[in-house]
Amino acid sequence: MTDLTTQEAIVLERPGKITLTNVSIPKISDPNEVIIQIKATGICGSDIHYYTHGRIANYVVESPMVLGHESSGIVALIGENVKTLKVGDRVALEPGIPDRFSPEMKEGRYNLDPNLKFAATPPFDGTLTKYYKTMKDFVYKLPDDVSFEEGALIEPLSVAIHANKLAKIKFGARCVVFGAGPIGLLAGKVASVFGAADVVFVDLLENKLERARQFGATHIVNSGDLPHGVTVDSVIKKAIGKKGADVVFECSGAEPCVRAGIEVCKAGGTIVQVGMGQEEIQFPISIIPTKELTFQGCFRYCQGDYSDSIELVSSRKLSLKPLITHRYSFKDAVEAFEETSHHPLNNIKTTIEGPE
Amino acid sequence: MTDLTTQEAIVLERPGKITLTNVSIPKISDPNEVIIQIKATGICGSDIHYYTHGRIANYVVESPMVLGHESSGIVALIGENVKTLKVGDRVALEPGIPDRFSPEMKEGRYNLDPNLKFAATPPFDGTLTKYYKTMKDFVYKLPDDVSFEEGALIEPLSVAIHANKLAKIKFGARCVVFGAGPIGLLAGKVASVFGAADVVFVDLLENKLERARQFGATHIVNSGDLPHGVTVDSVIKKAIGKKGADVVFECSGAEPCVRAGIEVCKAGGTIVQVGMGQEEIQFPISIIPTKELTFQGCFRYCQGDYSDSIELVSSRKLSLKPLITHRYSFKDAVEAFEETSHHPLNNIKTTIEGPE
Amino acid sequence: MTDLTTQEAIVLERPGKITLTNVSIPKISDPNEVIIQIKATGICGSDIHYYTHGRIANYVVESPMVLGHESSGIVALIGENVKTLKVGDRVALEPGIPDRFSPEMKEGRYNLDPNLKFAATPPFDGTLTKYYKTMKDFVYKLPDDVSFEEGALIEPLSVAIHANKLAKIKFGARCVVFGAGPIGLLAGKVASVFGAADVVFVDLLENKLERARQFGATHIVNSGDLPHGVTVDSVIKKAIGKKGADVVFECSGAEPCVRAGIEVCKAGGTIVQVGMGQEEIQFPISIIPTKELTFQGCFRYCQGDYSDSIELVSSRKLSLKPLITHRYSFKDAVEAFEETSHHPLNNIKTTIEGPE
Amino acid sequence: MTDLTTQEAIVLERPGKITLTNVSIPKISDPNEVIIQIKATGICGSDIHYYTHGRIANYVVESPMVLGHESSGIVALIGENVKTLKVGDRVALEPGIPDRFSPEMKEGRYNLDPNLKFAATPPFDGTLTKYYKTMKDFVYKLPDDVSFEEGALIEPLSVAIHANKLAKIKFGARCVVFGAGPIGLLAGKVASVFGAADVVFVDLLENKLERARQFGATHIVNSGDLPHGVTVDSVIKKAIGKKGADVVFECSGAEPCVRAGIEVCKAGGTIVQVGMGQEEIQFPISIIPTKELTFQGCFRYCQGDYSDSIELVSSRKLSLKPLITHRYSFKDAVEAFEETSHHPLNNIKTTIEGPE
Repeated sequence: MTDLTTQEAIVLERPGKITLTNVSIPKISDPNEVIIQIKATGICGSDIHYYTHGRIANYVVESPMVLGHESSGIVALIGENVKTLKVGDRVALEPGIPDRFSPEMKEGRYNLDPNLKFAATPPFDGTLTKYYKTMKDFVYKLPDDVSFEEGALIEPLSVAIHANKLAKIKFGARCVVFGAGPIGLLAGKVASVFGAADVVFVDLLENKLERARQFGATHIVNSGDLPHGVTVDSVIKKAIGKKGADVVFECSGAEPCVRAGIEVCKAGGTIVQVGMGQEEIQFPISIIPTKELTFQGCFRYCQGDYSDSIELVSSRKLSLKPLITHRYSFKDAVEAFEETSHHPLNNIKTTIEGPE
Repeated sequence: MTDLTTQEAIVLERPGKITLTNVSIPKISDPNEVIIQIKATGICGSDIHYYTHGRIANYVVESPMVLGHESSGIVALIGENVKTLKVGDRVALEPGIPDRFSPEMKEGRYNLDPNLKFAATPPFDGTLTKYYKTMKDFVYKLPDDVSFEEGALIEPLSVAIHANKLAKIKFGARCVVFGAGPIGLLAGKVASVFGAADVVFVDLLENKLERARQFGATHIVNSGDLPHGVTVDSVIKKAIGKKGADVVFECSGAEPCVRAGIEVCKAGGTIVQVGMGQEEIQFPISIIPTKELTFQGCFRYCQGDYSDSIELVSSRKLSLKPLITHRYSFKDAVEAFEETSHHPLNNIKTTIEGPE
Repeated sequence: MTDLTTQEAIVLERPGKITLTNVSIPKISDPNEVIIQIKATGICGSDIHYYTHGRIANYVVESPMVLGHESSGIVALIGENVKTLKVGDRVALEPGIPDRFSPEMKEGRYNLDPNLKFAATPPFDGTLTKYYKTMKDFVYKLPDDVSFEEGALIEPLSVAIHANKLAKIKFGARCVVFGAGPIGLLAGKVASVFGAADVVFVDLLENKLERARQFGATHIVNSGDLPHGVTVDSVIKKAIGKKGADVVFECSGAEPCVRAGIEVCKAGGTIVQVGMGQEEIQFPISIIPTKELTFQGCFRYCQGDYSDSIELVSSRKLSLKPLITHRYSFKDAVEAFEETSHHPLNNIKTTIEGPE
Repeated sequence: MTDLTTQEAIVLERPGKITLTNVSIPKISDPNEVIIQIKATGICGSDIHYYTHGRIANYVVESPMVLGHESSGIVALIGENVKTLKVGDRVALEPGIPDRFSPEMKEGRYNLDPNLKFAATPPFDGTLTKYYKTMKDFVYKLPDDVSFEEGALIEPLSVAIHANKLAKIKFGARCVVFGAGPIGLLAGKVASVFGAADVVFVDLLENKLERARQFGATHIVNSGDLPHGVTVDSVIKKAIGKKGADVVFECSGAEPCVRAGIEVCKAGGTIVQVGMGQEEIQFPISIIPTKELTFQGCFRYCQGDYSDSIELVSSRKLSLKPLITHRYSFKDAVEAFEETSHHPLNNIKTTIEGPE
């Protein structure tokens, strides 16, 4: 017998333990809400981090939480004030809903709202379930020729776009990307579409660097495979000129990369710190003023980033498909998390199909 | 018998040794040059650093160098293409002359020109002499009621203005200044004039904090004198609100200050790193993306900063006089450097009169 | 006998006819709403324009409408989600409430939201009544020493601040203001507080120009009283230098002023068109590209302007009191409108006390 | 017998009269100068305007002047301080040399320097001769696969890039271009490369609109061929959405186009006025504030524009070839001017080969 009020969800019970569990089906309680039937979800590094460590910074998993926040789906139900969406629309979901009355909201920097409710960031449940409820203005229609899988990856693409906006990337810019994971690959490709003349990718893994060729790489540097005495800095400057990079996207969070990024960045240039890895590093502070660098943090995305992502994909200037290396059905989602956390090296992006 | 081709100068012979030595009097060789009779010069931390350490970053004192770069004086001689100045004009000198053909020059960021010729930065001689030659467009007329001493301090004031521009300071901003030396005091006061609602000064020395009251302080915090368990961050947030600072001016270069600055800065805020102290520090890197901070280096000054400084002083919105704690005649200049380097704690700014 | 559900209001019945009429008292229907007891209201040029012409641009008065949108008061009732205000708080009201789901809202440019509900802009009722209902985040607490009258004028001050932000006014700027009415006076004074070195006011009326002296004027020009053959442009350039103005605030909407503004503005400068007067003018279009001018429209205010206004007033950097030339009780409000519309010349700002 | 000190030049003797005349061959007098052997020159509308009217704005042809300023060539001679160029280099010439000491130079807005010496703007001679002398930093190397003809057109391309920068064009922008001449075509194509989602071209001439298809057009509108009662505004909004354009490039200078541009521009949008046509027009001034429009003048180009142009062409993101409709040898240059001025309608761009 079917229970009509519950649905299966991928729940992080506690660090190290994920289960397929029944949770309630949401109901519309505000006329601006919509309910989405989830069709595809990407696994993000943060999902894995909550799974393995139970926390990120001050966000601590204290009770069971549905995972997942990179999702797309079909509009299943709409509130009475929803005029721009209709049942059946294929959509991507922006997973953070800010306080409508906050100054951050009005400034278009709602990613900085301390009261933002973000899917799968404690204590808020994520999207890895059949029906997920959200607000009408954080749902974006997908063009017909964009698959649900690609729609799910609008989320990391929005981070890459946000990073490029914070970098104030200009036509002709010489860029370096440290870390060729999903965010790094997308940040480099967006830079390329936005007019970068050079995009150098630096990583330790050959398979990631190979994939970078599909993401706008003009040069790739395997920093683990340099001749003795040759620095990453010198190799990059040989490629892009001795002034150094206009923009560095640091997408690894690793000390050697941050330091190399500061070294290779030109005087007056910008380093966008996107990656979160080590909490503390040894840092060459005196170079920041001497070279008048802008060391810019990047957190998620905000006003305009999601719609730009969809425009990028629908105009075919960027393809999300080469990002996906692993696919799982919803039933195998627990295995997906286990595999992704245990064998990260040959993985770029894993996606999970929505439940039937 | 007087030698008509030489003049006395304050020369750094080698680290630790300054002498009063004869050097050549400059001659005009380009029609856009001017020769200034120096009337007052401030001692900068960088002068002291060259004196005590013989180098700053990659700038190494390899042969004797005239010291001094914070100077004012009287126009003594002008080239034939100089139309905006006349002999006898009272002026301040901007001490760095960029390459006229560099892109940095055309972008108004000539402070970043790698070929900038900066007074008393090796290998270029400084201003501590009677006659100093420079270019017409880096000489600024002083209003009648601005003294030569104040004119000399237009230089550090320009750093403070540059820092405020990089901070994109806005009306109503809540600011924190770490380090109440000359640059910190001026940065805070400029912030106040530019509309800051709060300016909190943090230092370890009570006499510097007391002086901060003349430089726009709305609050002062002696970080060496807090009750056990009370953090600088918590004291400041009590004063300016728990969101934290819009802008932090880090003018010390010390690890505890950089760390406290990052902590007290609001999400989306800006930390301007002006101070150069430690070369390497332990740095809480993961907070940069999490709070989407802008950590902005500040190096000297560029287009518009000197003229804004003079406007600030001549409009009486800012007084440079309370900065000066010690005065020496040119004859006692060697002693001035010795005293300033040995007893820095109760010193804010030392000035040296020009030679007669 | 008192009717407990209705209150008196100043109603524009049709062009040319204003009455004191009974309207319903509002009730809280959303937990984020607040009801304000109105204590003071300024009469704006737009109120007068609706009164005399019945329309502004596409906004047409088609049914009776309560007038007034420059108001302050006391919090009388709050919804259950209102945490930052309490009954009895003295407050200023921002009179336009945007659509919470619009992109303009998220960009902080909610003044451009086509669905903005603005008090006393048809078809939305204004504030000239006892109780007025609005949303919690468009209500701003007034400092104790700011009177209700001044609180009402936070509204035009916010326009002046918005104009200055659009002008990207910089320290040391040379500014010219055409039209010394309330907006012009405030725009000039805000420019002065924001660091303008020169503020030249141009008007035809000596009493307005006299008042400009209390609003930061460094020079005043009576454009109706120049010697034969002397242009406004030449008089201003004599005062501020022949390069011309960095920023022009055109607050009249009159053809001769717009043309003089374009002429006096320096190459690369900015003219902010704040005033709305003539719909069509003869315009020297070819000067726009030749001088690479920025001709910038300014419409109302948006994110941050109201709070900056309150900071300006509470920090005593700007006083709103000298703006007020006429005061009326609520009972005499109809007369206030008649007088203000018939004798505009010696009037700067008229305020109406709230009903008892 | 050959005269070794003179060369042939295309000289505007007086309005209406162009001749092939002997002028002096330039000599290097400053060590930063270079002499270029001109290989190709485009005819600009301003050349034609001087030819037909003898003046543009305040620039009046008072004595014979060599025409031409859109040129490329080969480095023939270099001064002793020229290190980045060598004899034989294929180059494009930026035709305006600013005062090295001006603030406009240091701000990177040297196009606004009142003392700019611009080729073929009275009283300065142009480039239509064999040898032309200029300064090293206004000469740009051309990639091998860029022809001299294309190199000449780096000049109008730089105007188009400058217009796009002033427009602050963003990814996904909806753009409208009025006037499909060389500047309009290039402005639209640059917008497309810079990420515009829509580029609508509006012109009266079918052959120009046809060519727009090679310059990024997503839609073309023949404004002379609309059904009765259908406005340009309504046709464009049907194509790009009823909010209107984010950016309008007005490249005609004609009143109906300026007016249509203001109408079709969205609230908060930008109109870049590039075209210079009528000196005065009837202008709907009140819409500027009501829609908070930015009406931005655009004059020539400045720091970074020329190098961006070369990057655009060498990266093959934009081809200049489809712009060229007519070619003449140097000997036939007088005829070229006559034809271009008498039969402008089917002409986009005419180029003249350099003398042998």
